Amino acid sequence: MTLGLAYRCVPEAELADVAGQLAAQLAAGPTRSLGLSKRLINATFGNVTELVIAFFLILEDKTEIVKASLTGSIIGNLLLVLGLSFLLGGLKHEEQTYNARSASIHATSLVLAVTALLMPALFALSQSGESAQQIFVEREVVSGTVSAVLIALYVAALVFTLVTHEHLFRTPSAEEHPSWSRRKAIGVLLASTAVVALEAELLVSSLEPALEDLGLSELFVGLIVIPIIGNAAEHSSAIMFALRDKVDVTLEIAIGSSTQIALFVAPALVFISLFVGHPMDFVFSTFEVAAVALSTILVFMISSDGRSNWLEGAQLTGAYVIMAISFFFVEAL
Amino acid sequence: MTLGLAYRCVPEAELADVAGQLAAQLAAGPTRSLGLSKRLINATFGNVTELVIAFFLILEDKTEIVKASLTGSIIGNLLLVLGLSFLLGGLKHEEQTYNARSASIHATSLVLAVTALLMPALFALSQSGESAQQIFVEREVVSGTVSAVLIALYVAALVFTLVTHEHLFRTPSAEEHPSWSRRKAIGVLLASTAVVALEAELLVSSLEPALEDLGLSELFVGLIVIPIIGNAAEHSSAIMFALRDKVDVTLEIAIGSSTQIALFVAPALVFISLFVGHPMDFVFSTFEVAAVALSTILVFMISSDGRSNWLEGAQLTGAYVIMAISFFFVEAL
Amino acid sequence: MTLGLAYRCVPEAELADVAGQLAAQLAAGPTRSLGLSKRLINATFGNVTELVIAFFLILEDKTEIVKASLTGSIIGNLLLVLGLSFLLGGLKHEEQTYNARSASIHATSLVLAVTALLMPALFALSQSGESAQQIFVEREVVSGTVSAVLIALYVAALVFTLVTHEHLFRTPSAEEHPSWSRRKAIGVLLASTAVVALEAELLVSSLEPALEDLGLSELFVGLIVIPIIGNAAEHSSAIMFALRDKVDVTLEIAIGSSTQIALFVAPALVFISLFVGHPMDFVFSTFEVAAVALSTILVFMISSDGRSNWLEGAQLTGAYVIMAISFFFVEAL
Repeated sequence: MTLGLAYRCVPEAELADVAGQLAAQLAAGPTRSLGLSKRLINATFGNVTELVIAFFLILEDKTEIVKASLTGSIIGNLLLVLGLSFLLGGLKHEEQTYNARSASIHATSLVLAVTALLMPALFALSQSGESAQQIFVEREVVSGTVSAVLIALYVAALVFTLVTHEHLFRTPSAEEHPSWSRRKAIGVLLASTAVVALEAELLVSSLEPALEDLGLSELFVGLIVIPIIGNAAEHSSAIMFALRDKVDVTLEIAIGSSTQIALFVAPALVFISLFVGHPMDFVFSTFEVAAVALSTILVFMISSDGRSNWLEGAQLTGAYVIMAISFFFVEAL
Repeated sequence: MTLGLAYRCVPEAELADVAGQLAAQLAAGPTRSLGLSKRLINATFGNVTELVIAFFLILEDKTEIVKASLTGSIIGNLLLVLGLSFLLGGLKHEEQTYNARSASIHATSLVLAVTALLMPALFALSQSGESAQQIFVEREVVSGTVSAVLIALYVAALVFTLVTHEHLFRTPSAEEHPSWSRRKAIGVLLASTAVVALEAELLVSSLEPALEDLGLSELFVGLIVIPIIGNAAEHSSAIMFALRDKVDVTLEIAIGSSTQIALFVAPALVFISLFVGHPMDFVFSTFEVAAVALSTILVFMISSDGRSNWLEGAQLTGAYVIMAISFFFVEAL
Repeated sequence: MTLGLAYRCVPEAELADVAGQLAAQLAAGPTRSLGLSKRLINATFGNVTELVIAFFLILEDKTEIVKASLTGSIIGNLLLVLGLSFLLGGLKHEEQTYNARSASIHATSLVLAVTALLMPALFALSQSGESAQQIFVEREVVSGTVSAVLIALYVAALVFTLVTHEHLFRTPSAEEHPSWSRRKAIGVLLASTAVVALEAELLVSSLEPALEDLGLSELFVGLIVIPIIGNAAEHSSAIMFALRDKVDVTLEIAIGSSTQIALFVAPALVFISLFVGHPMDFVFSTFEVAAVALSTILVFMISSDGRSNWLEGAQLTGAYVIMAISFFFVEAL
């Protein structure tokens, strides 16, 4: 079974539709639900695929590919998903506006993520003269602490935006009228997620023969191919909302999803991997840290004014192409 | 004498009170004095401890610990002092505001500091094939020039904020009424500083046995332990002002103190160390440069809107914990 | 013929006058021409010298000096030209304002340039175990793709500012009245450029003996000396416009010129060098990437508020001195 086949089997398009439906459905509720729906439903279900794929890869001890796919997912969401959304939305609408405050909180969270990626990476570089056992224990302690801090800050950001300062993030009530009932939307979403999980397993098991067929390095697959598959749902729904001039939702999907991967999914995998006996630490390569750092700075600069246009979309997309070609020939990080 | 004992002996709490008193005292004067008091009195006396500790360490040729303690002091002020102030102030007040312009000048100064840390570090990495004598001379020339530029820019920023553009930094007249006379406040402050200097000497001489007792690396002590002791005064007064909703003063204490260390104390130590015959260059490790750079970016992003809240405080504090744990196991930079 | 002599021969002062004349001439036309004049005429003719010098150096296979001179030109424009303009303009005018939006687009373009510099540099570091032939081919593919993306984004930014969103960049009609006809201005400009090209050739051929005379490393000449000569035109006209309180034009000259070098001149040289059989890739050293990255961050922080003053000018100039001294002793990057 080739990668292409596995990809075609994943009902990403439907899942995106479902997420869109559910977001629209919840958006019709009180304002608070809209905030909740945007941040949690869209971002969380968008990341279920990543989490499931990562879990199966960890069971096969392919931790470097897991890290690559987490990195790739962050830069894919920040540059490619957001870039194409801004580009296409900007071609239809001259200038689009969104809540700069919300974008700023995400950007700060991403800089925290960069801090959490860079410091352990530098720490690992300093471990040259130690025994394998000592290196392992120290890395696990550092990784566990960093992961715990990130999860705590992820929860703190949720409490801030949903509870203590919820009024700052209210957006004008959406005009979408859902065609599905809430129960139906949730049911279909859960079912679709189960299907995605099943097919993620198929995808992972079909990776190796597909790699041989296409001549792609494992690393490139982890950094570029898997995230594009895993983010297909974000892709279509983020662009759809940008075309409808609801860039606030686009941002929640694209940046919110990256924030969630960096501050929740990746740290959670550190603990999950330890629990299932296939420990994965939180030490990423310089290449990966640099890619996330550059993406974060670009998104911060572009989103800090609360406005987007087609040029900003083209710039983000261009940065993604530059990163992808730089990763293409790399055999190991 | 253990570290703990040395710490308990330092009358930081009283010193903080004195600085607070003096700031309040001067704040009751004309507006200009307030600017002066905030920037110079709070930041300068807050850094006397660092300067004295560094001086005694330089006499013992422990220049790596001096650099670590300067780095640690910068990130401690930017992340821990500011973080706890924003966190506690933000739990009491929903949102706190301050002069974004002043924060922006400090942030730019900090990026200059990062430039001044990174460029000589990269230069030093390029010195592989040279003789020890040549390496020493070149490093001293680079360090001296960089230090002179930083001190000149520090003075320039003072002239800008206190003389040529002083009106931009006026804050509403403080409502504090000092209970001490100016003369008494200054006298007590000088006396306290003398006591701190004496005890800093005790601290330094007691470092080595304490390290053995606690199993901490010299580097961790320089980066984390000494700065927390040295910044105890900043800590308590910065938080106190944040609780009283005077975040402008908090910022002057925390960021102003970091700026002063980076642009004045550290460069001054380069010249002082040369003068006393124990030369310390201005070449810091990648690890240290990265920590200061990340702290600077975080503070810039968080403070550029002139508002603070508990989440921003938690994020800064979290970043500090991530750095501290990454430094914990490192033996050498 | 010494460097100093070569320098005195280059009629930079006149060229600057001509560029100023032409800008003023076009500024008297409709608003759209002003945008065009500012961005294209000033920046483009300012960079002709760089392009010509680089071309002759490429023919002599001195690609490392070409890269150094491109890097030096970017940081020279961002820090020295802009710094001295802000400093002198700020000493004459208390505070100067400009279109923050235009500055922001340039800053984003520069971060793209940093991305395009850093990613291939990291890629090149990962090529350790490969054959010389494979390294060459892979580098050319990466360099070609990155260059194509940059040129596309440069054109996109021109289309955005000159066509689709041109109204955002209109500045109040200039009060300058040109004393030359448009035809005369263009004619003189072309003639001056031809003279510059001729003398650039002389400069390059006189480089080696001059280096021996002055004891400067080739690298320092590429990073600092050549760019200062090549940017003399930008220098005088940028400062002149700042003194006349037309900082928008200053920014177009200084930042616009850097953007053009990073997104157009450097990528174009990759293709030109391939065409003339002396291929130059797009792999820069860490030192160069760091210098451009720091300059970009400083300019972004200083220009994002749309205001400038003498302190910001001093800070940019100070950063330039720090970089220059760090480069001074470096033999190879």
